[in-house]
Amino acid sequence: MGLFTKDIKTMNDLFVHQLQDIYYAEQQLTKALPKMAAKATDPQLKQGFLTHLEETKQHVARLEEVFKMHGAQVKAVDCPAIDGIIEEADETAGEVADKAVLDAALINAAQAAEHYEIVRYGSLIAWAKQLGRTDCASVLAKTLEEEKATDKKLTTLAESKVNLRAALARCTSIIRSLSKHDGRLEAYVSHGAAIEVAACEPTPSSINPFATTPARRAPHRSLRLL
Amino acid sequence: MGLFTKDIKTMNDLFVHQLQDIYYAEQQLTKALPKMAAKATDPQLKQGFLTHLEETKQHVARLEEVFKMHGAQVKAVDCPAIDGIIEEADETAGEVADKAVLDAALINAAQAAEHYEIVRYGSLIAWAKQLGRTDCASVLAKTLEEEKATDKKLTTLAESKVNLRAALARCTSIIRSLSKHDGRLEAYVSHGAAIEVAACEPTPSSINPFATTPARRAPHRSLRLL
Repeated sequence: MGLFTKDIKTMNDLFVHQLQDIYYAEQQLTKALPKMAAKATDPQLKQGFLTHLEETKQHVARLEEVFKMHGAQVKAVDCPAIDGIIEEADETAGEVADKAVLDAALINAAQAAEHYEIVRYGSLIAWAKQLGRTDCASVLAKTLEEEKATDKKLTTLAESKVNLRAALARCTSIIRSLSKHDGRLEAYVSHGAAIEVAACEPTPSSINPFATTPARRAPHRSLRLL
Repeated sequence: MGLFTKDIKTMNDLFVHQLQDIYYAEQQLTKALPKMAAKATDPQLKQGFLTHLEETKQHVARLEEVFKMHGAQVKAVDCPAIDGIIEEADETAGEVADKAVLDAALINAAQAAEHYEIVRYGSLIAWAKQLGRTDCASVLAKTLEEEKATDKKLTTLAESKVNLRAALARCTSIIRSLSKHDGRLEAYVSHGAAIEVAACEPTPSSINPFATTPARRAPHRSLRLL
């Protein structure tokens, strides 16, 4: 990439070089995101990658706008950092036995890319202001906000998946069988040496019968979980 | 690096692999930080890199502790992402005409490394909790907090340098000459077509005579800047 060749002498040179660096990164991400979407198994994650792909195409267009506003040539330079991050993400295309593991690693890879961009756009905006280019800073700030929003969405998704997996793991270990009785869902729950029956109201749209209060020690007594 | 070879099947495999990845990254950073400190020209930045070097050595030791707590082999695997980030930082070792530009780019390179680590430690902590290893999560969380604190310090340093440069740029454009008169520092300031004299108290340790209220239009009148 040659971040510091001798032709980078001023803050303006550094600003333009960094624009070229992130322009390359965004272009590479437009190629990587469809592959990540294809591999993701969680529908929300898959859709998240596709939505961010559209945003990323817009980020490329905004960078071209900034190059022109600043009177600089629209040009990309290689950036080994994003290449490395994408290389890790690409490797998720390999065969993985557990789909949940694949999704977790895809989220992690995507967040590494987002944070790389957050740092670079943060510096670009500060440097643009320093150079008196508040017009360029304003355009770049739109992209930075979208990168931050994507990172937050990925964190939320990762956390919800972790919580769901934890809840399911708890249920798998205690639920022996399920049945319906008078419209109620009843779960036969192992609790130490005893077997309990836990029940919930028949309003399936709002009920997650397995993620709430654990059944208390009350063998063969019907308990409300919600 | 081979993030997804077929031997990564469970969340535990992914957790251990990610430990190996960040263990490699921290080791590489212990080699990169002294070079960055040697090149930094701002004394605060130089000291910041040296302080973080000591923290990074501690992070390596903490990872070895986590490997042992988790009963996993202490091992590093190549990680192209951190290699790329460090490659960019290393290139700052080249000759750069303007030292302020070098410092700005060094801060930016260091923040890219910090954010990479923040993402990886964030995932490691979530996965450790999911695996029931709150003991490992707790050790890793100490490092995450230090990485975040370093990132904040770098941002503060970058902003203060940008502000200082902006203040100096304003001064350079308006100050014609400086002189001392009866213990006061006097600045002959161009203001439109007029020349003004601005003065400040002779307490140099607490005074930055150029970063405060601009001199008002009052030709040849002595004005206090502070």
